Amino acid sequence: MPKTIAAFGEVMMRLEVPGHDLLTQASQLNYSFSGTGVNIAGSLRRLGYSTKLITTLPNNSLGDAALSYLQKLGISTGDISRSGKYLGMYFLENGFGARPSRVTYSNRIESSFNTADTANYDFVKMAQDIQLLHVCGITLAMNAQVRSQLKQLTRLVKENGGMILFDCNYRPALWGESGYQQAKPHYEELFKLADMVMMNEKDALYILGYPSAHTTREKQLEELIPKIADTYDISCIAGTHRDVHGDESHSIRGFLYQDTTFSYASQQHFAVLDRIGAGDAFTTGIIHGLLQSYPAEQTIQFAVASSMLAHTISGDTSLASEADIQQAVTAQRQDVIR
Amino acid sequence: MPKTIAAFGEVMMRLEVPGHDLLTQASQLNYSFSGTGVNIAGSLRRLGYSTKLITTLPNNSLGDAALSYLQKLGISTGDISRSGKYLGMYFLENGFGARPSRVTYSNRIESSFNTADTANYDFVKMAQDIQLLHVCGITLAMNAQVRSQLKQLTRLVKENGGMILFDCNYRPALWGESGYQQAKPHYEELFKLADMVMMNEKDALYILGYPSAHTTREKQLEELIPKIADTYDISCIAGTHRDVHGDESHSIRGFLYQDTTFSYASQQHFAVLDRIGAGDAFTTGIIHGLLQSYPAEQTIQFAVASSMLAHTISGDTSLASEADIQQAVTAQRQDVIR
Amino acid sequence: MPKTIAAFGEVMMRLEVPGHDLLTQASQLNYSFSGTGVNIAGSLRRLGYSTKLITTLPNNSLGDAALSYLQKLGISTGDISRSGKYLGMYFLENGFGARPSRVTYSNRIESSFNTADTANYDFVKMAQDIQLLHVCGITLAMNAQVRSQLKQLTRLVKENGGMILFDCNYRPALWGESGYQQAKPHYEELFKLADMVMMNEKDALYILGYPSAHTTREKQLEELIPKIADTYDISCIAGTHRDVHGDESHSIRGFLYQDTTFSYASQQHFAVLDRIGAGDAFTTGIIHGLLQSYPAEQTIQFAVASSMLAHTISGDTSLASEADIQQAVTAQRQDVIR
Amino acid sequence: MPKTIAAFGEVMMRLEVPGHDLLTQASQLNYSFSGTGVNIAGSLRRLGYSTKLITTLPNNSLGDAALSYLQKLGISTGDISRSGKYLGMYFLENGFGARPSRVTYSNRIESSFNTADTANYDFVKMAQDIQLLHVCGITLAMNAQVRSQLKQLTRLVKENGGMILFDCNYRPALWGESGYQQAKPHYEELFKLADMVMMNEKDALYILGYPSAHTTREKQLEELIPKIADTYDISCIAGTHRDVHGDESHSIRGFLYQDTTFSYASQQHFAVLDRIGAGDAFTTGIIHGLLQSYPAEQTIQFAVASSMLAHTISGDTSLASEADIQQAVTAQRQDVIR
Amino acid sequence: MPKTIAAFGEVMMRLEVPGHDLLTQASQLNYSFSGTGVNIAGSLRRLGYSTKLITTLPNNSLGDAALSYLQKLGISTGDISRSGKYLGMYFLENGFGARPSRVTYSNRIESSFNTADTANYDFVKMAQDIQLLHVCGITLAMNAQVRSQLKQLTRLVKENGGMILFDCNYRPALWGESGYQQAKPHYEELFKLADMVMMNEKDALYILGYPSAHTTREKQLEELIPKIADTYDISCIAGTHRDVHGDESHSIRGFLYQDTTFSYASQQHFAVLDRIGAGDAFTTGIIHGLLQSYPAEQTIQFAVASSMLAHTISGDTSLASEADIQQAVTAQRQDVIR
Amino acid sequence: MPKTIAAFGEVMMRLEVPGHDLLTQASQLNYSFSGTGVNIAGSLRRLGYSTKLITTLPNNSLGDAALSYLQKLGISTGDISRSGKYLGMYFLENGFGARPSRVTYSNRIESSFNTADTANYDFVKMAQDIQLLHVCGITLAMNAQVRSQLKQLTRLVKENGGMILFDCNYRPALWGESGYQQAKPHYEELFKLADMVMMNEKDALYILGYPSAHTTREKQLEELIPKIADTYDISCIAGTHRDVHGDESHSIRGFLYQDTTFSYASQQHFAVLDRIGAGDAFTTGIIHGLLQSYPAEQTIQFAVASSMLAHTISGDTSLASEADIQQAVTAQRQDVIR
Repeated sequence: MPKTIAAFGEVMMRLEVPGHDLLTQASQLNYSFSGTGVNIAGSLRRLGYSTKLITTLPNNSLGDAALSYLQKLGISTGDISRSGKYLGMYFLENGFGARPSRVTYSNRIESSFNTADTANYDFVKMAQDIQLLHVCGITLAMNAQVRSQLKQLTRLVKENGGMILFDCNYRPALWGESGYQQAKPHYEELFKLADMVMMNEKDALYILGYPSAHTTREKQLEELIPKIADTYDISCIAGTHRDVHGDESHSIRGFLYQDTTFSYASQQHFAVLDRIGAGDAFTTGIIHGLLQSYPAEQTIQFAVASSMLAHTISGDTSLASEADIQQAVTAQRQDVIR
Repeated sequence: MPKTIAAFGEVMMRLEVPGHDLLTQASQLNYSFSGTGVNIAGSLRRLGYSTKLITTLPNNSLGDAALSYLQKLGISTGDISRSGKYLGMYFLENGFGARPSRVTYSNRIESSFNTADTANYDFVKMAQDIQLLHVCGITLAMNAQVRSQLKQLTRLVKENGGMILFDCNYRPALWGESGYQQAKPHYEELFKLADMVMMNEKDALYILGYPSAHTTREKQLEELIPKIADTYDISCIAGTHRDVHGDESHSIRGFLYQDTTFSYASQQHFAVLDRIGAGDAFTTGIIHGLLQSYPAEQTIQFAVASSMLAHTISGDTSLASEADIQQAVTAQRQDVIR
Repeated sequence: MPKTIAAFGEVMMRLEVPGHDLLTQASQLNYSFSGTGVNIAGSLRRLGYSTKLITTLPNNSLGDAALSYLQKLGISTGDISRSGKYLGMYFLENGFGARPSRVTYSNRIESSFNTADTANYDFVKMAQDIQLLHVCGITLAMNAQVRSQLKQLTRLVKENGGMILFDCNYRPALWGESGYQQAKPHYEELFKLADMVMMNEKDALYILGYPSAHTTREKQLEELIPKIADTYDISCIAGTHRDVHGDESHSIRGFLYQDTTFSYASQQHFAVLDRIGAGDAFTTGIIHGLLQSYPAEQTIQFAVASSMLAHTISGDTSLASEADIQQAVTAQRQDVIR
Repeated sequence: MPKTIAAFGEVMMRLEVPGHDLLTQASQLNYSFSGTGVNIAGSLRRLGYSTKLITTLPNNSLGDAALSYLQKLGISTGDISRSGKYLGMYFLENGFGARPSRVTYSNRIESSFNTADTANYDFVKMAQDIQLLHVCGITLAMNAQVRSQLKQLTRLVKENGGMILFDCNYRPALWGESGYQQAKPHYEELFKLADMVMMNEKDALYILGYPSAHTTREKQLEELIPKIADTYDISCIAGTHRDVHGDESHSIRGFLYQDTTFSYASQQHFAVLDRIGAGDAFTTGIIHGLLQSYPAEQTIQFAVASSMLAHTISGDTSLASEADIQQAVTAQRQDVIR
Repeated sequence: MPKTIAAFGEVMMRLEVPGHDLLTQASQLNYSFSGTGVNIAGSLRRLGYSTKLITTLPNNSLGDAALSYLQKLGISTGDISRSGKYLGMYFLENGFGARPSRVTYSNRIESSFNTADTANYDFVKMAQDIQLLHVCGITLAMNAQVRSQLKQLTRLVKENGGMILFDCNYRPALWGESGYQQAKPHYEELFKLADMVMMNEKDALYILGYPSAHTTREKQLEELIPKIADTYDISCIAGTHRDVHGDESHSIRGFLYQDTTFSYASQQHFAVLDRIGAGDAFTTGIIHGLLQSYPAEQTIQFAVASSMLAHTISGDTSLASEADIQQAVTAQRQDVIR
Repeated sequence: MPKTIAAFGEVMMRLEVPGHDLLTQASQLNYSFSGTGVNIAGSLRRLGYSTKLITTLPNNSLGDAALSYLQKLGISTGDISRSGKYLGMYFLENGFGARPSRVTYSNRIESSFNTADTANYDFVKMAQDIQLLHVCGITLAMNAQVRSQLKQLTRLVKENGGMILFDCNYRPALWGESGYQQAKPHYEELFKLADMVMMNEKDALYILGYPSAHTTREKQLEELIPKIADTYDISCIAGTHRDVHGDESHSIRGFLYQDTTFSYASQQHFAVLDRIGAGDAFTTGIIHGLLQSYPAEQTIQFAVASSMLAHTISGDTSLASEADIQQAVTAQRQDVIR
């Protein structure tokens, strides 16, 4: 049996107010299921990889619905355990123009995933089949038990020869006050284990506490990223800079630091339909480029195009095919494909 | 300022799968806000009373949406405090014929209401304006702190000359194993404080532990209810017996024990659109009859008709006017009102 | 050019709350356009006749939408004039079981139709092409001007050799207090002009003021209808008796008095999806039977089946084909037609 | 009991074709309730004020639905009378790009509000509790009776020490031919009573008939507004200039003339979701600034930001909180608020 | 790798008019994907089995959507080939009461499945993993090539020790005139290969041409089924008799002939939400009983309950769990499961 | 009876995924009916012309629905025959920003229109009433039989003195490999018959095989169009150049070659809601200009404005009135029309 790409993380229920209404105005919600791990496993499956998610879902109708949704994305669900009763949720009110989008979380800390016994998972067996494991800073922020599960699995995959991708994904609200101090040792531990890291200069400055004499983002990036790659022996580091414009459009630039060299993708400027999860589509693009041994410049362009297209699809998980992304890398705007 | 009818209890978010789909099938939910207190305060407002709800709502978009919903029902929201982040939720999958409806709760125990400090509420001040306070066994089941708040408010209202209505509303899932034993002392405490109680013979047998030599529901009822009224000095006790039929219809019979006499409403058989909250519409009808000094027989018929109509309206809170209910008490089926 | 069947009457906008919600609960409405004339012309078109509507529509977006809707039904719109700004409207809240449906009208008296100048219509020219004209008591109730237009057109059609069908359709709310007295002379005038009348014994008793010694509907019918047919020289009179049951079902029986003989259709009992407009589908069936020279018994059975099917289709206008109705006359219940 | 902010005006039913469809294309409408007074009372409530609406609603399901809607906005409804049967309505077809939006009114002149007896209102009692009364030129345009009611209430409030805000809101379609002449005496009467007026140079030129030697809007404004403030002894006058762009975006600039000085807000350029009611959100912002004794420059910036945000929310009534507006005054565009 | 249950057959797109509207009335369709094989594989997956579908899907967006849908049901899609451009479709207009449902097919004969090369499938390899293969008379009716593929796979599975279930599913419209003669040799061929057959006495009489002296269905069944089981060496034969009632309800009785003995399930009478696919849920129940070695009586009761529940779920594929079905076998009607 | 404008062509069912979802994501489709002929006949009807469509629709519910839809557009349907079972369909997934829209066709080659016997149509009789016939290259691409029908009708109309408009509308996917060679003789045949042709320089270069020394579109156009007009004796040739921008907007410029002179419309830049069918609205505008004898410059401006507005309306068929288009020709952007 060929090895697969695995992600370890929570499944969230996304409850979105349709259109641009507020929760006070509407009476209907669109729901789907997501989470960083779901986004990674789902969009890599769309690119042709065999992928699985390692998580725990509640043993009720909500869990059944989440499981069906993951199956629909083509994600292997054989390593998903079922226990507990709750699913983390978030409510999304879409912004418009001058009004920002708003996300309201329900209590994810009591979710099945965040309260699951480590005995739920046969990590030793799982680790043998994993070619690449995706973990992220959101899971790291949850609680000591989940953190320990994440580290345990990461170490086992590494020991079995699998690659580790760590996405910094620092969320201030989850770490609380003096969060950077609390987060630092855990992030350092993961940086030591990781082969690939998704981050930018802010993570270096604030989480890892690297000082910089520079004041521009670009200079800080070029100063700090090589240091980190060197210190922690990380073979590739990638990330983006995003600008938000007033007319419902964003711009992103992407960088990839690989083999001690920076590659950049030219800035893309595009209309935004759904911003959430677009960062994970960037990661997906990087993984695809690396696994396909693309030249670094092709990898970073592919990753930025993947992220750009993810902004044009409703829902957190990118559904773009390789052909869709290649077309977006190269082409001018198209009218209608018949 | 005239005194009002108040209810103390949790506001829940109801998330209903439209039509008859399962959570696995659908991608949209209809939402509204309810809870026993909401149903009582909302439907009594529709009958012309000034009503308020005493509760705590989260300080975010969900809390705002719940507050707007309560306002829409005409409930006074001046005694609602705002703290915490979570709202109890339940997901409703409507059954059809041979397939029962299914309710899946999210973790209400961490809700704003169930974790609110007692300092959130100025019970002393509130108690002065309350003509009648509605409390129920669901709130009693939550945790020690909420239980204590419920009892404290109940005593204060009683001391200020207000009436107490206690609805037994025993929910096995909330009390857990050996629930009856745990519940008993709290129920007894409430029975001592209550002027009116909503219950039937099952509550007497299982919660209060009254023995009965009889085997039919009807005989048990006529044996036990007078004993309870006498023991706890309760001026009126009311309740229903429900039969569920295979063709999407139910029957209910209602009884009212008042002034040491039983009154019964003739059995009503009716099609069911939405069963949830229909018990609260029965309570509403009893309260209305008592406050309007209806003869007992009229009260119980009004209460059953109120409950019957509540089954014909989507959502938990009955929206029937007094004229609607009077018409349902007396009339044959009508075609179209033009 | 072959002659057509024409109806003279108002187009109403129907604004229906979806499902079983009340106007207070919902935030969406389904809209369509109807009216007795629309129902007659639309469903006769579906049965293969060339039909037209004579009316006035407002000269704005609402009028455009109404016109498109009539075109969709296949009704010829060449004799529709455009003036004024308003369209009569009604809001429909669907009942459920014990809760009756409720219709709330907007101010139709100011509608384009009810305020149209007689100069809007070239009645002389129109009358030459009309084989059968349908008019009804609703239009008669509106105001003196519309009443005069109705009578003028009716007389002209009669003079040109066309047939007149008059549907009594007495609406108490439109005639107001002492309505029967006010209505009587106008109804008598129409009865004199009519070849066919839709009515039952109630219209004879209350509008025309015929006394009856009998107390059952059936006896009164058999006593009074022949007298009326004789007095006013009406070749055929038809109507129904309806019973409303508690389980969302109705029964109707139909009668046809033709050539001094009564024919009856056996009672049909059926589930009801949408009751409004079902009476017009009965009229449609009678017209079809007469124009096709069906034996009287076949005509009345066809008319009752037509009305029954109209209860199973959402919206006011019946969309059943001749084959659908024939199948409903004869057949037992069917599963799925593949 | 603290005094409240009151608005006197009609409640309209807004019936909006969803998305960008025309009335001829669609079969569903979204409905809500609005009107200048509703917008003012609703959005000031959202800013923390106690507000009420003085109006008349029909005594039927439509009136019930309107009342629930006002309650949902938190508006006090104790001074709303119920009589008549009709509610003013308007149908909204949303434009797109080169195609403008289109509003089609139903006959508001027969509405409950526009035909209500003056005896419906206890103006003398109401006037005692009003800190600030909002009236506008739309109500002034309706008919002699409503006009008289408006003036009566305005005078009584003034006599009781309340402030008067008059919004010119001149609607040519309502005043008909030679409208300016007809409107002039009534506007002058209101200008004499008003403490605050919402207007711009066009109202001065066309309604009040002030001549100007200048040709640019800006110069005319600076010439005429001080004259008016002086003539009519108005303490503050505010208004906006709007530009409509081809790409679904608008720009507005705002001015405030207070204490004989002009303050201007810098021009805001923004994407438009729903333009209707955005002028009322400007007024709301002005009122808030004045009642909070903001410096004039802060007031006008707050008002423009309030109006800008109102364009980003579906429906006529702004639902922005003070924090939302403050954030829009100061901040750059935001991504997602988590 | 454990063996799986496989089905060979076409995937159809189901396009359903929402509610009870006709295609002429509506403007929206609900779509899903089904087919006998999909229903069997999907509902057995829900009962815990590993299942796969062998079919061909078009190589475009429609094929992608169908594939996602099968994945959502948990069906293994590894043996699905992609070629061609078309998907068989059917449009469903739901009936109501006296009005039957209507199914309109699009041209399935040009579908990817019905035009797929045999080279699309590696039948030899597939056959090795199949514990039980489901084939049916619908596929047999398509064309010579598909028929040949069906027989080839069936023989290979049989040779590899797998079991064969053949569902007669005779569709007159697909076989055309003198269909029974054309179908007979192919059905005989399948009967020889089958271990289990789904049929009733009508298939024996009309397709296989067995004469019967009896006139009641029950007698014919008891006469002919044992003969067929004996002639073709079929270990188990099962089927149902269905009655359609006028009130939106059906009854079914089920029989199972196994080990030369008939077992019957008591007749179930139930309300019907969605009739399509309910026969496949019966088959599913039989397969489950056989694979679990239930006593025959338990098997047939389980199968009838499975079919009954399938009528209460929207869509063709049953989603009932084993617990749901067991509960339906034993229990009286339930209210709400909380 | 006055002559009408007729179009000969297929009716397609358009099945559109709502909003911006993919077919894999959604579960609902919006449907309508279109086709080049439908668009032409529908939008010319909206401009006041009597129009008819000559086509064949299936004899089932789909055909009924299509027919109703055409009636709604006001198209005369008296020359539509009914036979066969299938309707050509296309599925539309709307793009967003960087993601193009995608159209997936079902098998139109087996549609009722494309398989209709020539005996379905009484071309000789039809040709007598046609003032102007619209035919296009899409129909020409279908098959030999349809092609022959098109040519037969075209010749008959020409012989009866009617005008012929031929729209090149070359679709590569329909002609397959070496399509230009196959198409050429048929196009030449139509060019000889046509009075008006819709095309641009690409059709001249690739289909008709005219060489050009020029490299810009503009120069090629000015070189080739006069040659073609001269060679084939075509009185007027018109077409557009379109640019697709990244921000959901397009630009078009239009040209009209009439009386040996080129007229151009200034480039319009506009936001796009629905691009499909906008070319047909250009043709509609040209026809209107010619029939109204507008000066050439006015005609081409009207045609471009007509096409621009068609991009702002959902659905294939333009619904703009003459006033709407005139307003778009002249005016600046408007706010709201009240």
